Amino acid sequence: MLEDKNPKPLSELHQLGEFGLIKHLTQNIELQNKSSVKGVGDDAAVIEFKNKQTVVTTDLLVEGIHFDLLYTPLKHLGYKAVVVNLSDVYAMNAHPKQITVSLAVSNKISVEALEELYEGILLACNIYGVDLVGGDTTSSTSGLIISITAIGEVDSKDVVYRNGAKENDLICVSGDLGGAFMGLQLLEREKQVFNDNPAIQPDFAGHDYVLERQLKPEPRQDVIEMFKEIGVKPTAMIDVSDGLSSDLLHICEQSKVGCVIYEDKIPLDFTVVALAQDFNFDPTVCALNGGEDYELLFTIPLEEYNKIKDQKRVTIIGHITADKGNYTIVDKNQQVHQLIAQGWNALKN
Amino acid sequence: MLEDKNPKPLSELHQLGEFGLIKHLTQNIELQNKSSVKGVGDDAAVIEFKNKQTVVTTDLLVEGIHFDLLYTPLKHLGYKAVVVNLSDVYAMNAHPKQITVSLAVSNKISVEALEELYEGILLACNIYGVDLVGGDTTSSTSGLIISITAIGEVDSKDVVYRNGAKENDLICVSGDLGGAFMGLQLLEREKQVFNDNPAIQPDFAGHDYVLERQLKPEPRQDVIEMFKEIGVKPTAMIDVSDGLSSDLLHICEQSKVGCVIYEDKIPLDFTVVALAQDFNFDPTVCALNGGEDYELLFTIPLEEYNKIKDQKRVTIIGHITADKGNYTIVDKNQQVHQLIAQGWNALKN
Repeated sequence: MLEDKNPKPLSELHQLGEFGLIKHLTQNIELQNKSSVKGVGDDAAVIEFKNKQTVVTTDLLVEGIHFDLLYTPLKHLGYKAVVVNLSDVYAMNAHPKQITVSLAVSNKISVEALEELYEGILLACNIYGVDLVGGDTTSSTSGLIISITAIGEVDSKDVVYRNGAKENDLICVSGDLGGAFMGLQLLEREKQVFNDNPAIQPDFAGHDYVLERQLKPEPRQDVIEMFKEIGVKPTAMIDVSDGLSSDLLHICEQSKVGCVIYEDKIPLDFTVVALAQDFNFDPTVCALNGGEDYELLFTIPLEEYNKIKDQKRVTIIGHITADKGNYTIVDKNQQVHQLIAQGWNALKN
Repeated sequence: MLEDKNPKPLSELHQLGEFGLIKHLTQNIELQNKSSVKGVGDDAAVIEFKNKQTVVTTDLLVEGIHFDLLYTPLKHLGYKAVVVNLSDVYAMNAHPKQITVSLAVSNKISVEALEELYEGILLACNIYGVDLVGGDTTSSTSGLIISITAIGEVDSKDVVYRNGAKENDLICVSGDLGGAFMGLQLLEREKQVFNDNPAIQPDFAGHDYVLERQLKPEPRQDVIEMFKEIGVKPTAMIDVSDGLSSDLLHICEQSKVGCVIYEDKIPLDFTVVALAQDFNFDPTVCALNGGEDYELLFTIPLEEYNKIKDQKRVTIIGHITADKGNYTIVDKNQQVHQLIAQGWNALKN
């Protein structure tokens, strides 16, 4: 499907029907993983991980809540829908191997649009070595709904939960934070401008980085591989989907510990800082509460400091304390503040 | 949660928020299966099947397409949402062990309503020995959306696909067919009556069986256990979700064979026949095209006839032929007709 560049005539979904549609969208899929015994086309997929443990995670994306088709290209949407699930698998220190994809689509959407969505889905599968092994396609009374389940494998000795952080552990995060949130703000601002006057073209010049962070995030497979290379196993790990504060609190609550992080250590890209200032936002608040960065937030024992300190892709931002329930951030003026979960709440939006 | 009979004050969802809601709905879940290493509460669930193969299936149910909340009690809806997935696992001759549940809910729905839905979900889990190990809860701009993924285990030597049917194999089906479809017709008729005059109470007297077939179907775990007891492994199997004709054609197409079935062999409950006649429907057509019966349709080698012939829960309805692509039904007057897939098409409704 990814190879087929010949445009087909716009087709109506009901001509294909449910079975025809699944067949059409999945016909060119070749299974890459030995563990994928049986893919699309039976009552269920069959997987064999031998002596490893299986990791399962699922996410539901709803049009108008999680994405806006006005400014989200369908190929990017498909890619991101896969990435958010792979990110959860990596956050277990596991390797994703299979996904299932369920779609609910309105009759108004064309087969070509679904092909674009699937192009993105299969591109992500391809890049991260994952097989699409099953799914379901049905109608929606309103917008597009995407439900993806990702399945991965891990040696039982390697699995990392959220609940293993210990006193004095270093709190580390990969990449930089707040970019996805600023990308969203930019898209929303230009949407507003467009709605007010459709003749004005959106102004995205110089903002590639934040747009990519929002529209085409990448899961941190490389960080999982780094752990293996340098011989470090995190004591706790989570992916930053709701915002640094909210996700760090998940680790602390489940580990029954406290934490201190330092504002001036939080990794921020300079384009994110500049754009946040444009919007009159505090860049630190964007990093703490923005979410959707899909970076990995993890804790490692203090003794591992030497192994991690020169890793360019990781920043140490604080440490775990024994003071259970006391979550603090030290600002640039050495003032101590309570760290509060204000992550993205899908039920409030 | 199933034990808590004290009504809580009606709560608004956004007070709980996404994390609060997941916690609230899943707090009393105890994992039953050894293979469920880690359940709700981390980035992903962890499962360990040792030497067995893993079976994965997923279904997406959309309000207004798959269910009508006017006449579907939420507890039944939760139960059925699980059952349709377990049925797919049994159709692989596998045993379901875990599910994940993703919900998209409108802000108008109360926490109490979601508790009812979860009561049904957990009741099905309890009865079929399945652990709820993860999921996602988010907002919906319109109605209720339920996405369930079921995971099961099977010895690799026992797995049954759709593609193994051979010439002369007997075509068998469990239970009886058409009931779920007639239940739906009845509910739709009474809805129409109610819409025309809300003072008139629905008339469901004597129709318990078809209503139960529609609202609270059971997956055929017992048939899978029977196979083990009598030492039979089907050559091909599928669950009847789209209608006998459509599902039999899936087996034949994938097995590259033909088939003959006999109208007078198709198992029909007498209440289904009576109600179909009331509606001026041909009961055979209800069985062929109705769907949602969640019975198991399977083929076995002719030599196994003696093992299966006295099994009350199974009816032999025809046999497989070498005449690839030729699918026929012999009617009560010995006339031969082409069998056409007219199963339920979710994209047309």
